[in-house]
Amino acid sequence: MTETRGETSPGGLRASTGQLAALLDAELIGPADLTVHTFEPIEQATAGALTFIRSAMYAAGWARSGASAALVSRGIEVPGHDATRRALLVVPNADVAVARLLERMAPEREHPPVGVHPSAAVHPSARVSALACVGPGCVVGAESEIAEGAVLEAGACVGARCVIGAGTRLGPRVTVLDRCVVGARCVLAPGVVIGADGFGFVRGPAGIVKVPQVGGVRIGDDVEIGANSCVDRAKTGETTIGDGTKIDNLVQIAHNCRVGKRCIICGQCGLAGSVVLEDDVTLGGGVQIMDGVRVGAGASVGARSGVHRDVPAGASYLGAPAVPVREAAAQMAAIKRLPDLIKRLREREP
Amino acid sequence: MTETRGETSPGGLRASTGQLAALLDAELIGPADLTVHTFEPIEQATAGALTFIRSAMYAAGWARSGASAALVSRGIEVPGHDATRRALLVVPNADVAVARLLERMAPEREHPPVGVHPSAAVHPSARVSALACVGPGCVVGAESEIAEGAVLEAGACVGARCVIGAGTRLGPRVTVLDRCVVGARCVLAPGVVIGADGFGFVRGPAGIVKVPQVGGVRIGDDVEIGANSCVDRAKTGETTIGDGTKIDNLVQIAHNCRVGKRCIICGQCGLAGSVVLEDDVTLGGGVQIMDGVRVGAGASVGARSGVHRDVPAGASYLGAPAVPVREAAAQMAAIKRLPDLIKRLREREP
Amino acid sequence: MTETRGETSPGGLRASTGQLAALLDAELIGPADLTVHTFEPIEQATAGALTFIRSAMYAAGWARSGASAALVSRGIEVPGHDATRRALLVVPNADVAVARLLERMAPEREHPPVGVHPSAAVHPSARVSALACVGPGCVVGAESEIAEGAVLEAGACVGARCVIGAGTRLGPRVTVLDRCVVGARCVLAPGVVIGADGFGFVRGPAGIVKVPQVGGVRIGDDVEIGANSCVDRAKTGETTIGDGTKIDNLVQIAHNCRVGKRCIICGQCGLAGSVVLEDDVTLGGGVQIMDGVRVGAGASVGARSGVHRDVPAGASYLGAPAVPVREAAAQMAAIKRLPDLIKRLREREP
Repeated sequence: MTETRGETSPGGLRASTGQLAALLDAELIGPADLTVHTFEPIEQATAGALTFIRSAMYAAGWARSGASAALVSRGIEVPGHDATRRALLVVPNADVAVARLLERMAPEREHPPVGVHPSAAVHPSARVSALACVGPGCVVGAESEIAEGAVLEAGACVGARCVIGAGTRLGPRVTVLDRCVVGARCVLAPGVVIGADGFGFVRGPAGIVKVPQVGGVRIGDDVEIGANSCVDRAKTGETTIGDGTKIDNLVQIAHNCRVGKRCIICGQCGLAGSVVLEDDVTLGGGVQIMDGVRVGAGASVGARSGVHRDVPAGASYLGAPAVPVREAAAQMAAIKRLPDLIKRLREREP
Repeated sequence: MTETRGETSPGGLRASTGQLAALLDAELIGPADLTVHTFEPIEQATAGALTFIRSAMYAAGWARSGASAALVSRGIEVPGHDATRRALLVVPNADVAVARLLERMAPEREHPPVGVHPSAAVHPSARVSALACVGPGCVVGAESEIAEGAVLEAGACVGARCVIGAGTRLGPRVTVLDRCVVGARCVLAPGVVIGADGFGFVRGPAGIVKVPQVGGVRIGDDVEIGANSCVDRAKTGETTIGDGTKIDNLVQIAHNCRVGKRCIICGQCGLAGSVVLEDDVTLGGGVQIMDGVRVGAGASVGARSGVHRDVPAGASYLGAPAVPVREAAAQMAAIKRLPDLIKRLREREP
Repeated sequence: MTETRGETSPGGLRASTGQLAALLDAELIGPADLTVHTFEPIEQATAGALTFIRSAMYAAGWARSGASAALVSRGIEVPGHDATRRALLVVPNADVAVARLLERMAPEREHPPVGVHPSAAVHPSARVSALACVGPGCVVGAESEIAEGAVLEAGACVGARCVIGAGTRLGPRVTVLDRCVVGARCVLAPGVVIGADGFGFVRGPAGIVKVPQVGGVRIGDDVEIGANSCVDRAKTGETTIGDGTKIDNLVQIAHNCRVGKRCIICGQCGLAGSVVLEDDVTLGGGVQIMDGVRVGAGASVGARSGVHRDVPAGASYLGAPAVPVREAAAQMAAIKRLPDLIKRLREREP
């Protein structure tokens, strides 16, 4: 690895197991006076590190881990724990406890100061809150509104008649095109494009005809969208992303999709035109969904699935074409045995 | 959904069914004096809305749709139509009629005014038409030419010795690197990258050797390329995109590909090196094509296919590896029945 | 194709076969006095062109190729060669020879001059080498270091407390966020995003909880990353990319991945969280790897595979789920025959 200097980690953690137990309201099984100063995955953790145990698989690694202490989800058996030497901190949900702890470790993220950088190009008719931060090289178009506490990082570009909600952060080089609305407290990572034209073309007798995309995009509150992901504007009406939905990197949301609240959409997913995700849907990485398909509330679709038909609420689907997980697993197991099966059948043939 | 104010739709449509029939040269079945003021999909349409019927499936939704009127492709039976209360507008192709109508509704898209924004960095040897629009933060390199009516939106970056054709629009943050040519009337969405180095590396005895990519990219006229898509430069010679081809978001076109005229390439497709698409090819979303493969004129490849071998002209292929659609459907049906088949065979075994 | 003027190719090659043989230390089979002035693939090559023959398949095209000369990997039989009219240049590895030759043909790539462009926004506490090139609209954050010979092309954005190593080139619109380290002699293509937050969210009883991503990214020396690819920062610790690794366009590397040295990762691959690639791994296009999976040193995974389990060192895997290539081929062949098999079995059933 490079010898280049440079420290990628912030100051970090320094606390005793007793302090952590108090902070996280955890049950302490072990000494209260162990000091931890880093946070590491269980396999790489060394003395002085805190780690976490979210499942039996993680618990199995505890005996040979070098970590001094671990956050453990309540109900998980941790074999080989020696409470005289190391500490377990039992909490309702280790992942949530980790999140709370990391929040305290997280450095303040740098952003442009309040006000408009002199190199930004803000249209005279735009309404930029005096409490917004507009960084170098940003552009804000006619009649757009940038609310209080919003942050436009370097080179973010907002078109005409847009709204960027309070406390929302547009990363460097984010583009929000005309007539798109982004709610409050959203985070759009660098390179995100909101409101590009939907891909609407018709092969006509005289060549390809473009279907103008005259609608917009409306993004709710508390939405996160990952680097270089795209949400296209609607043909007519709106493409919508519901409150609290989280979208990873390099995801494509096509025109007229309606994504519900609190959905989780992992990296490289693609939603074709007019796909509906109801609330609380989870899509693993690389899932692609055909146009017009509806995924019911609370459903989950496993990584790399191709979804051609509606998924019922609450269901778990997998595969391409996606079917209930149990069926998908049976298919995969069967395919694995197929070459051998064919061989045996051939041997038996006359 | 967010309470943030902000109107995503333009002024829109307001016309009587009679006016629409005249405008679109449609056969009117129903009253001429119904007023429509929005354009909505058939399932969501309410009174006052115009919708469209492109197939029997859409037609089946007409009876329970709230829409006041519908554009219908000629030859489609629309069950339950009451011509005393609602209007059908029969046209040769509903999709084309929709496109023509939306064109009239589409707001003028905002763009920088004619001339070069003071914050743009244009090389003295570049030739920028007095009728081109070069927005804030744009860059134009040495000896490049920006033709009449071309629009470079905020932060678009054109390298050295490029040509950007007449009437072509580069969205915000588009990058066109050295020695690439973009034809007339093209639209490149935000984040598009034209002319990055092809991915040419050879594992040699002394490590990985980079194969310099000394060719360029040539894009025809009337081409559209979606947000954050990439077209790499050729190793030698040119990567080419033919006139009238339309490319969606997050698509990868590798070095030395030759894409024909009037191709349609949906989101997240990937073409490896030296792939050839002849004219009028259609690729569904997420299709990936191995290096050197040729897809014949007029062929279509279904979503999520992986193409390992040449596809004959006019064929419809599907699957991974892609085969004729009929075969692919038979394979999928067979896999669905495979777990049960294996179970039954096992029962019969001695 | 567009009639737009514009030359995409640089000056190019002009040499005699004798000169080339001397330059590349090649064995010459044929005349020394043939002049070549272009470099073309074997099928398109015409008189005056040099081409290359890297396998028997290429060699089979030599007889009907118009090329005047060819670089040939030693040991490959070239049928129908007439050494009185055309020339073969035999070298240890034709691909490496091509690379060496193209290097001589490659035009100097344009970049901003040494120094900081007046429109760049460099934080007073940043340390920018007097021998670095910082282009128009670039941003360099607090306490960051830009080493000697580094080039930041137009609009590249470097956050706070980053290091950009000596001779490293950030293409236009590249974003490197806070506390990320990029080694020496790297090339990051336009639109690359380094250090966006890892996708860490936990569904808790009170909704989705964000797991703060407090780690960083550390990229080794001599790394290339393709257009619009993303490398996320670690939850804690570092996401790492080893020396000499080459990554193509639109690739996603999630938080806490550890990518070894000299890996080759083709376009549209996706590595979920905490994936480990040991040294010298090769991933074909569109490969996606589940979180926590480890791919052993020297292993290769074929295009479009989905990797759910660890891959042993040196192995070749393929398919979704990925299995050894031989098994994958057997499965594919079996699936192809499955519809017919089911039909025959049904015929035999009572």
